[in-house]
Amino acid sequence: MTDVVPLRLTPPDGFQLLDQTLLPAELRYLRITSVEAACEAVAALRVRGAPLLGIAGAAAMAVAAERGSASDSELAAAAAGIESTRPTAVDLGTRIRQALETVHGSAADTGQRRSILWAFARRIIEERLAEDRQMAEHGMTLFGRGDAVLTHCNTGALATGGIGSALGVISTAWEAGLIAHCYVTETRPLLQGARLTMWELAQLELPATLLPDTAAASLIASGRVQAVITGADRIAANGDTANKVGTYGLAAVAARHGVPFYVAAPLSTFDPRCPDGSEIPIEYRAAEEVGGFAGQRWSPDGSTAYNPAFDVTPAELIAALVTERGILRPPFGAAIAALRRA
Amino acid sequence: MTDVVPLRLTPPDGFQLLDQTLLPAELRYLRITSVEAACEAVAALRVRGAPLLGIAGAAAMAVAAERGSASDSELAAAAAGIESTRPTAVDLGTRIRQALETVHGSAADTGQRRSILWAFARRIIEERLAEDRQMAEHGMTLFGRGDAVLTHCNTGALATGGIGSALGVISTAWEAGLIAHCYVTETRPLLQGARLTMWELAQLELPATLLPDTAAASLIASGRVQAVITGADRIAANGDTANKVGTYGLAAVAARHGVPFYVAAPLSTFDPRCPDGSEIPIEYRAAEEVGGFAGQRWSPDGSTAYNPAFDVTPAELIAALVTERGILRPPFGAAIAALRRA
Repeated sequence: MTDVVPLRLTPPDGFQLLDQTLLPAELRYLRITSVEAACEAVAALRVRGAPLLGIAGAAAMAVAAERGSASDSELAAAAAGIESTRPTAVDLGTRIRQALETVHGSAADTGQRRSILWAFARRIIEERLAEDRQMAEHGMTLFGRGDAVLTHCNTGALATGGIGSALGVISTAWEAGLIAHCYVTETRPLLQGARLTMWELAQLELPATLLPDTAAASLIASGRVQAVITGADRIAANGDTANKVGTYGLAAVAARHGVPFYVAAPLSTFDPRCPDGSEIPIEYRAAEEVGGFAGQRWSPDGSTAYNPAFDVTPAELIAALVTERGILRPPFGAAIAALRRA
Repeated sequence: MTDVVPLRLTPPDGFQLLDQTLLPAELRYLRITSVEAACEAVAALRVRGAPLLGIAGAAAMAVAAERGSASDSELAAAAAGIESTRPTAVDLGTRIRQALETVHGSAADTGQRRSILWAFARRIIEERLAEDRQMAEHGMTLFGRGDAVLTHCNTGALATGGIGSALGVISTAWEAGLIAHCYVTETRPLLQGARLTMWELAQLELPATLLPDTAAASLIASGRVQAVITGADRIAANGDTANKVGTYGLAAVAARHGVPFYVAAPLSTFDPRCPDGSEIPIEYRAAEEVGGFAGQRWSPDGSTAYNPAFDVTPAELIAALVTERGILRPPFGAAIAALRRA
């Protein structure tokens, strides 16, 4: 069993980044020693997953400080450059701005500023690990001995930089002798299940079976899985949950068969500004991602495509929301409001 | 607009076969002038789809007669060889045995026997076209002007040798000014939607949009489609329907949104020996089909896979069954029994 470490700080040199575009064929760490290299890695999706992007952004700010004078103006310019590589990635921008704030306007000298920025990057990695572990400790109580579960997309260390959200729950419950088997959807079009989740589970030596997205309904109907659990990209105030496209179909079929559908997500995923799922903006991606993969084309040239990156699962289909602060049960509106007030 | 012709008889030389493994990149007809070439084409899936395989089998019997003396014993040997290439393909065996029966024990000379076998092949092509057209004429009445529909897998001319089952209904309703747009799932793992259905619809110039299988639930929830229609591989006496894996999930989500789910299939698809879906045998296919395609691999080496070729949609989710003899409505048990007695 091997822990999956997608990013390692190596101050004052820079940081190492597992190139996720090469997985599972090749396990290669990139040495990131310049802001330009960090931007290239983010833009090319060598690093992905909202929480892990936040960590990469913070680490890139420390690198920016090492390569220059670490002045407020230099750091602000670096921050703008890094953030612009993926403007819709909320955690990336949030962590970069927080990094800036740790030194902005302070009287610290260059060396002190560099140390503060490295310490900030280290702290958010530790926070991620701690919160993922808390989420997993709560989440594992949802499972019984010998359970098999179905998951979708990638929600492991490769996505969060900790132990993962849904996949952290699964691996923790497996280590505790509860979950015995994990079924993994391929997750078209970008195949994060086939490429990344199957690889992470192989590293953990957790028994896993891959399936085409089309076979998930038949799997659930067969009684082979006792639960479905996924992560979330954004959770509205009423519990409606946006996640990787395909999640809603799994939840709808699970409900038909009385199989509980769970969502594991840190509190940072909850968006009180969205009253319900209809207010969550959905990103539509390029037609080229459909009808092919990695340069191989299957569909006729010029095919148009419907390619939303996310779908919305209504709260009524969700049996529980797993957070680092505990498990929320329906009705979620009240549970979420209470948690935010606490 | 171009008619899709997957097989053309060219007696006495043999027949031409559209090599479906090369689609959509290349449109290449193979000249089949020997039983060996016919067997290779069937085994290598250059020709596929139950009804079309039946036509190919009958055409191969005519070729066998042309290349030899057309004696009962020679034809029986050829029949055994062709049938053994895909032993589970029911139509292939049925049509080969029917071809044999047209000449078996008759006093006809070699030339007459050859003519009889060509005539049989021509007749089943014409029957297929006529039955597909009847199915389509009935099915089109289910649609209104400007409707958009969602379909799965390939059910067109490439599957039946006629105008198709579900895709025949769609194209006929489109030509009549009813259906205005067709959404097509990729249909993992073998991608018949992306490769074959998108190609057929492009030939017909029917407006079409491809989507990952994962996006179908979101599409249905969005209100963009007014119906879902697929073919069937086997229909039980109570209306439970086995079809390409992924169909059940589409039907389950359609039901949640009040979107009607239709099945178009010839009467030969109905199996009175199966009382319900639980009695329909499901073929499980090789793990290699999952986590990759056409030599490209995405998942780690040695990944195990859950890969059923079909799933079963319970009758309660089906709004209508479209056949060449008319449209059946629930309760299907009585409607199917009445049709068989008629």
